[in-house]
Amino acid sequence: MTRPQLLLFDIFGTVVDWHGSIVREVQARYPQVDADAFARDWRAGYQPAMQRVRSGELGWTRIDDLHRLILEPLLPRHGLGHLSEAERDHLNRVWHRLDPWPDSVAGLNQLKRQHLICSLSNGNLSLLTHMAKRARLPWDCVLSAEVFRAYKPDPQVYRGAVETFGLAPEQAMLVAAHQDDLAAARACGLQTAYIERPLEFGAKAPKDVSPVAANTWHARDLVDLARQLDAA
Amino acid sequence: MTRPQLLLFDIFGTVVDWHGSIVREVQARYPQVDADAFARDWRAGYQPAMQRVRSGELGWTRIDDLHRLILEPLLPRHGLGHLSEAERDHLNRVWHRLDPWPDSVAGLNQLKRQHLICSLSNGNLSLLTHMAKRARLPWDCVLSAEVFRAYKPDPQVYRGAVETFGLAPEQAMLVAAHQDDLAAARACGLQTAYIERPLEFGAKAPKDVSPVAANTWHARDLVDLARQLDAA
Repeated sequence: MTRPQLLLFDIFGTVVDWHGSIVREVQARYPQVDADAFARDWRAGYQPAMQRVRSGELGWTRIDDLHRLILEPLLPRHGLGHLSEAERDHLNRVWHRLDPWPDSVAGLNQLKRQHLICSLSNGNLSLLTHMAKRARLPWDCVLSAEVFRAYKPDPQVYRGAVETFGLAPEQAMLVAAHQDDLAAARACGLQTAYIERPLEFGAKAPKDVSPVAANTWHARDLVDLARQLDAA
Repeated sequence: MTRPQLLLFDIFGTVVDWHGSIVREVQARYPQVDADAFARDWRAGYQPAMQRVRSGELGWTRIDDLHRLILEPLLPRHGLGHLSEAERDHLNRVWHRLDPWPDSVAGLNQLKRQHLICSLSNGNLSLLTHMAKRARLPWDCVLSAEVFRAYKPDPQVYRGAVETFGLAPEQAMLVAAHQDDLAAARACGLQTAYIERPLEFGAKAPKDVSPVAANTWHARDLVDLARQLDAA
């Protein structure tokens, strides 16, 4: 297996802890809310919202706007129907303020020594840029579905990222905590690395992180991935 | 004047010294060539090549490919007609290996504390990413004409960058060493900062760096710009 030159990272759940970050912020500002259920409800609207774009029902719509569309009907259901426009806008931008997993910054800095490291998220460029600046994620380049105007797992996103760097697919690798994302990248010829994030959905909803043989690598976290790639 | 949140940087000549970098590399590898004339000839083909894309004569073509188109007829004229395909490809990528001006890295790191800093170059994403990694340019986000599929001074590029971040035009500022680039950004409502780079074309072809009153700021270099913005 050739050593990949370009590492492309899924973000939500893989590099940053969306569930824990939203729970912490909602608990601090709105202690009356079941923050765990709220965070999972919000995220549950994510794939259906992108599907409305993929199907053509909605024109190209950034994740910031999809997050807001999903948020609106959730607010009254979680006792937050009284929030002002400014409070809704601020809450919606919690996705710009997600905290990295404890290993992410160290792992990315180590991986950056030998590889080009780029985000490849459905999150929009503004969201990913604000997140990286706040969390000190050391991307060589912030890439987003927004650049290719298609949402993962559309092959245009993976192929677009590889073509941007003039590489053959096998010279690139997708790093993600989600098997469906990895399977779509693999179908485009990319190498794949699965990252275990058993608590992505919170401690009440542990995730199966069993290895899948089709992946090129399987790592506990990003520091472990860096260690494995350096040793290879 | 509102303090700009987003600083967008022209790259070739503004942040990196294309002339000096090409001269140094060509002198080292091909001492028989007049490197100063070669560098200026190559750059002289840049605007006409982009004009072929702007006019629709060529479909969307990345700068890497335009640099190569310009390079081919130059090689025999400068005594380099014997170069192999691999040597031509390597020479063409000198644009990925341009050195920053001595103040650029310190200035960008200082500007990054209070502002979002992004490239906004006609250079393609791969070129800008490789350049930033090698030269340690600390971009919050690498933006390129490639993202907007239009070349500066097309207003789509300036407007696209501002809209990417959901800002009003006056919340963003273009930083450049070229008055035509700044004038086009100003026509889109952006603030502008002119950077003096009197030796952009080499010591034999000094450039007029007189202030133009229409610019929001006029700075000797990027450290000077950071000092002025911090004091404002």
